[in-house]
Amino acid sequence: MVPALLSPSRRVRRTVFSAGVERAGVKSYTVYNRMLLPTTFRSLQEDYHHLKRAVQVWDVACERQIELRGPDAARLIQLLTPRDLAKMQPGQCFYVPIVDGSGGMLNDPVAVKHAEDHWWISIADSDLLLWVKGIASAGRLSVTIEEPDVSPLAVQGPRADDLMARVFGEDVRKVRFFRFGTFNFQGRDLAVARSGYSKQGGFEIYVAGGDIAMPLWDALMAAGTDLDVHAGCPNLIERVEGGLLSYGNDMTRANNPFECGLGKFCNLDIVTDCIGHAALARVAADGPGQAIRPISIPGDAVPTCDRAWPLTEGGKPVGQVTSATWSPDFGTNVAIGMVVAAQWAAGTALTVETPQGRRDAVVAGNFWG
Amino acid sequence: MVPALLSPSRRVRRTVFSAGVERAGVKSYTVYNRMLLPTTFRSLQEDYHHLKRAVQVWDVACERQIELRGPDAARLIQLLTPRDLAKMQPGQCFYVPIVDGSGGMLNDPVAVKHAEDHWWISIADSDLLLWVKGIASAGRLSVTIEEPDVSPLAVQGPRADDLMARVFGEDVRKVRFFRFGTFNFQGRDLAVARSGYSKQGGFEIYVAGGDIAMPLWDALMAAGTDLDVHAGCPNLIERVEGGLLSYGNDMTRANNPFECGLGKFCNLDIVTDCIGHAALARVAADGPGQAIRPISIPGDAVPTCDRAWPLTEGGKPVGQVTSATWSPDFGTNVAIGMVVAAQWAAGTALTVETPQGRRDAVVAGNFWG
Repeated sequence: MVPALLSPSRRVRRTVFSAGVERAGVKSYTVYNRMLLPTTFRSLQEDYHHLKRAVQVWDVACERQIELRGPDAARLIQLLTPRDLAKMQPGQCFYVPIVDGSGGMLNDPVAVKHAEDHWWISIADSDLLLWVKGIASAGRLSVTIEEPDVSPLAVQGPRADDLMARVFGEDVRKVRFFRFGTFNFQGRDLAVARSGYSKQGGFEIYVAGGDIAMPLWDALMAAGTDLDVHAGCPNLIERVEGGLLSYGNDMTRANNPFECGLGKFCNLDIVTDCIGHAALARVAADGPGQAIRPISIPGDAVPTCDRAWPLTEGGKPVGQVTSATWSPDFGTNVAIGMVVAAQWAAGTALTVETPQGRRDAVVAGNFWG
Repeated sequence: MVPALLSPSRRVRRTVFSAGVERAGVKSYTVYNRMLLPTTFRSLQEDYHHLKRAVQVWDVACERQIELRGPDAARLIQLLTPRDLAKMQPGQCFYVPIVDGSGGMLNDPVAVKHAEDHWWISIADSDLLLWVKGIASAGRLSVTIEEPDVSPLAVQGPRADDLMARVFGEDVRKVRFFRFGTFNFQGRDLAVARSGYSKQGGFEIYVAGGDIAMPLWDALMAAGTDLDVHAGCPNLIERVEGGLLSYGNDMTRANNPFECGLGKFCNLDIVTDCIGHAALARVAADGPGQAIRPISIPGDAVPTCDRAWPLTEGGKPVGQVTSATWSPDFGTNVAIGMVVAAQWAAGTALTVETPQGRRDAVVAGNFWG
């Protein structure tokens, strides 16, 4: 893609933090759930190094919530995912693959349990609200389904605990991974989870009510001056190094959870009546024919990966690369790809076809980050 | 919004025409159905004047199709919309509001009927596929629902008939408004409809198969040199002048069809079992409390409308402006707004609150285009 501007319109929604993002000098965006998501502030590499050494505040309001309330809420969410939620407690967050009747991934959200009759589904980039409403409507379930005024703000990086403790108190350090607690900010109780779309550690604050969004943004910025806090955003380099998958990039509705390394979240013996069970059971029995793998592309920096790049071996198609970027820390191009079973072993030498020509590629043993 | 670049990624999908769009010098995009949609080539005003005097080829591949096939296809599509489809013939296109159980707009697509058991739904900007799949899945209907490899290419402008006749033959001139015929291009049969998102006249070609996309683009460009053909795109000025509504901008799930001027497409006495019938019947009985109106904002050009602008009268909220731009041909700022009943009469003087301050506004009698 040639560099081009993003045209503003109401349809591409601003967030409750957009004023802070603009003030911090955002340089580029993507659109995620029909909402602005920053992609660079200083530069991709400067943001990356800073994320790994300091602390950043991220506008991830585009991780919209689907709120389920009502007597059938728990029944509905278990119908939607093959992951067993029976033992999930209020205060827990579960990563839950959600599939259609054919087992194709519709989204890979995080379920947030407030109570048996009150859940949030914190979504990746698809209008999962329409699926959930469609299922509940046609199934005549007693549950209300809405997108509430809740916007996640992430605090990520090695100094995230220190910054958060200054704003929310020392107890915030005790929140365990993928758990959340309720913390007060200016009289408002907010859910604060230890989670986030980086491998550098940190939190996601579910900011309920747009009115306190910029006060919280400003409070975090003011409290973190000596920690070198800066506005940031999910960083392409850091997420590919860490093997954090991106729905729409690394997997789509054409993929099942087993292909995406999410087989461990498919408890098909326990959850026997979820949507897509029969299709998933067939994949589980046979094993997936392809799977996501870390791919190393040695040599100079690859171009921007704006489309799937074919992977071949001896001229025959064996998969595709879906995310790729130069990693300064690892001195190679790091990539995420989908590779067929016969070629997915670590060390397999492949060819990747980029828009700027063919390159050697190797299936890596592990992600880097 | 401050000017910022759009970051490329696979998730924001390129189209089968992107190579042509780039070659034509696209300057900016929006993202529509998670796909690139160009917004300017030369400049907003230059594109506008050209659209009104010549002919443009538009990459509107982002108008994705939902394909319904199977014995329950007709039953499903009638369940989805309050518009009576009983007399719709193969070869017809119907604008069909689609609502949820509360009567809220989920999309305002065009239904394209190929046969009783074969339909396309040509969608605006929401993942309506998930709603349709959810309804069909939970309702156990016998129908397959997919997004096919079909990408609309629009040919718009006063010289559209001449250009199309050169590529598809003279018979294409006989296609009537919101009808389609089958026309051959390089051995492929394509559906060609007289439709499109402008008031300048023209066609939409449903390009089935990405392999012939660029050959068709190139053929149209080559055939139209003396007609001053140029790459174009839906133009903000021209669409607001013409009162062409934009889902996500001028209406959302918070609005019902009556508010959007789509009451004429709600045949509630005939279609008694569509989704949302009870909610729509209540609105039909009481009349909507607000409705979309053309709004004129006299004086200098308004800033870019990237969020809803409150409309007030005597300091009290009476609605909002959702699209607004300077119109060179009409010498005023043209706008689309939602206005409450007490103030929606033509000539009512209001105040609109833009991010750059308050401006006088007037409810207009008709759209301009």
